[in-house]
Amino acid sequence: MTIKIAIAGYGNLGRGVEAAIGQNRDTELYGIFTRRDPASVKTLTGVQVFDIKNILDHKDNIDVLIICGGSATDLPTQTPEYAKYFNVVDSFDTHAKIPEHFANVDACAKASGKIAVISAGWDPGMFSLNRLYSEAILPDGESYTFWGKGVSQGHSDAIRRIEGVIDARQYTIPCDDALEAVRSGKNPSLTTREKHTRECFVVAADGADKARIEREIVTMPNYFADYDTTVHFITLDELKRDHAGIPHGGFVIRSGNTGINGENNHVIEYSLKLDSNPEFTSSVLVAYARAAYRMNNDGLCGCKTVFDIAPAYLSSKSGDELREKLL
Amino acid sequence: MTIKIAIAGYGNLGRGVEAAIGQNRDTELYGIFTRRDPASVKTLTGVQVFDIKNILDHKDNIDVLIICGGSATDLPTQTPEYAKYFNVVDSFDTHAKIPEHFANVDACAKASGKIAVISAGWDPGMFSLNRLYSEAILPDGESYTFWGKGVSQGHSDAIRRIEGVIDARQYTIPCDDALEAVRSGKNPSLTTREKHTRECFVVAADGADKARIEREIVTMPNYFADYDTTVHFITLDELKRDHAGIPHGGFVIRSGNTGINGENNHVIEYSLKLDSNPEFTSSVLVAYARAAYRMNNDGLCGCKTVFDIAPAYLSSKSGDELREKLL
Repeated sequence: MTIKIAIAGYGNLGRGVEAAIGQNRDTELYGIFTRRDPASVKTLTGVQVFDIKNILDHKDNIDVLIICGGSATDLPTQTPEYAKYFNVVDSFDTHAKIPEHFANVDACAKASGKIAVISAGWDPGMFSLNRLYSEAILPDGESYTFWGKGVSQGHSDAIRRIEGVIDARQYTIPCDDALEAVRSGKNPSLTTREKHTRECFVVAADGADKARIEREIVTMPNYFADYDTTVHFITLDELKRDHAGIPHGGFVIRSGNTGINGENNHVIEYSLKLDSNPEFTSSVLVAYARAAYRMNNDGLCGCKTVFDIAPAYLSSKSGDELREKLL
Repeated sequence: MTIKIAIAGYGNLGRGVEAAIGQNRDTELYGIFTRRDPASVKTLTGVQVFDIKNILDHKDNIDVLIICGGSATDLPTQTPEYAKYFNVVDSFDTHAKIPEHFANVDACAKASGKIAVISAGWDPGMFSLNRLYSEAILPDGESYTFWGKGVSQGHSDAIRRIEGVIDARQYTIPCDDALEAVRSGKNPSLTTREKHTRECFVVAADGADKARIEREIVTMPNYFADYDTTVHFITLDELKRDHAGIPHGGFVIRSGNTGINGENNHVIEYSLKLDSNPEFTSSVLVAYARAAYRMNNDGLCGCKTVFDIAPAYLSSKSGDELREKLL
């Protein structure tokens, strides 16, 4: 018997989930639910598309609903609402608002007896797990998270809002010197500027003042002012040719000491190198959908994060197989 | 209230646990249990030492017993036996015999209502976790485990058994070319010889036939015959000066594809660089002792591996703190 998964929201993330479900033998895509006119949506697999308004008509056919909306406005309302009827998984990634989101979703999921997994993905998600495991093992140490090299959608959007900018792509790049200092076990104190640089590829409108655009980028508070930022002006054709992908990745490193006098150093490093940020996130969401379904079958309910889910729930292998082959 | 932990067996691992307990504010070392004459055991911290024969007299004072015996003969009998009376944690690392050990321990722990965590450490342990997580996320891919650079106790012992050898230290070294091929996402097929080399530092007796010793090493079945092995003859003073540590580490790498046509590649890499193999293992054992105690408090019992334990159980932080600070 396969796990029937539905997708709410059909952007990059939804398409990634659609593809990922096909890679797993124990999962099956039931359908896609959208706010758009279903007839206008062309899917990758030809699966059925429904108006999201009618989703409750499909309640009994869906084991888990993966909610692929945005963290700013969609998920804060969608996840608690759908947790009243479905096991759900989301990738809510506004770190500062996770406690509030957790509380809202938990109340709904406990009332309905469903499992709601929030903030699955890679950060929050796999990076969070590695921060937890490494800190629990090496309490006397320091943790560092680096992002990139990869496209930051938020920073790219911020550049696009500048007058005279037609399109832009921003890459976040971890600094090699900082990475090496951390890996050496020195536990350095690093400023924002020392950890990452930002590289921007900008398409300017004909006749636009490029000097002003560059100045507005590099001095932009929160987004760029605290970083060493490089700006390259390129043509729209170059942008489409060389910067069409959405790669990302990064590093979680913890360095810590053990021994009765702290005489031995250890470095734990977890890294991701991703061709497609949304497709990798989608793959994590599908693994956690499997977990949500099985935990609910085990009689569990409420809001869960990656911290609360025993790893075995994520794998399609049985406990016996896992112990024999992966332990 | 702190978690009272006792140690059974006082070798490198037991000493590592003794030191690690002092690094955690919520754990407390109750005492060390040994087969030796307790009066003859000099501890790092001055904690009380008892004859292991009398351990049941201390049953009510111990929350978790960390069993620091060897996998060959100690743990197969000790872990099931002590699981009848205590929450226990071990680092059983004979991969092929884990299913049998699990079954034996599970029966005892279920009967006593205790939690027994087996095979905690880094491999099995943290490496196993990373094999599971990465395979669950990227089902269309390949996993690779590399060990080293580090001292292999088993291989060092094998060299010491050769006639004319006074002492020896063997390092397992991952091959850079193989690591790079895996990181590139090519999913190469690698032979044993292509993955690791072995480097041996040997102290020969005066007048011993070094050519014969070297030949016996490099042709030794299972241990060295399938590897490119380098042998260096050094003095006992050099061995003591340059090879006193027990470093180890390694890499778990999974490379896999996503997308409707598998068009995007992703690489997940987890690595450890450890000054002291036993002290790092000990630190993992203490984190899992915390988990064992809390799971038992939550009414759970039976044998568990790292796969069965929700990550939050390992951390001294509360769920609220974890979501706020690490997610």
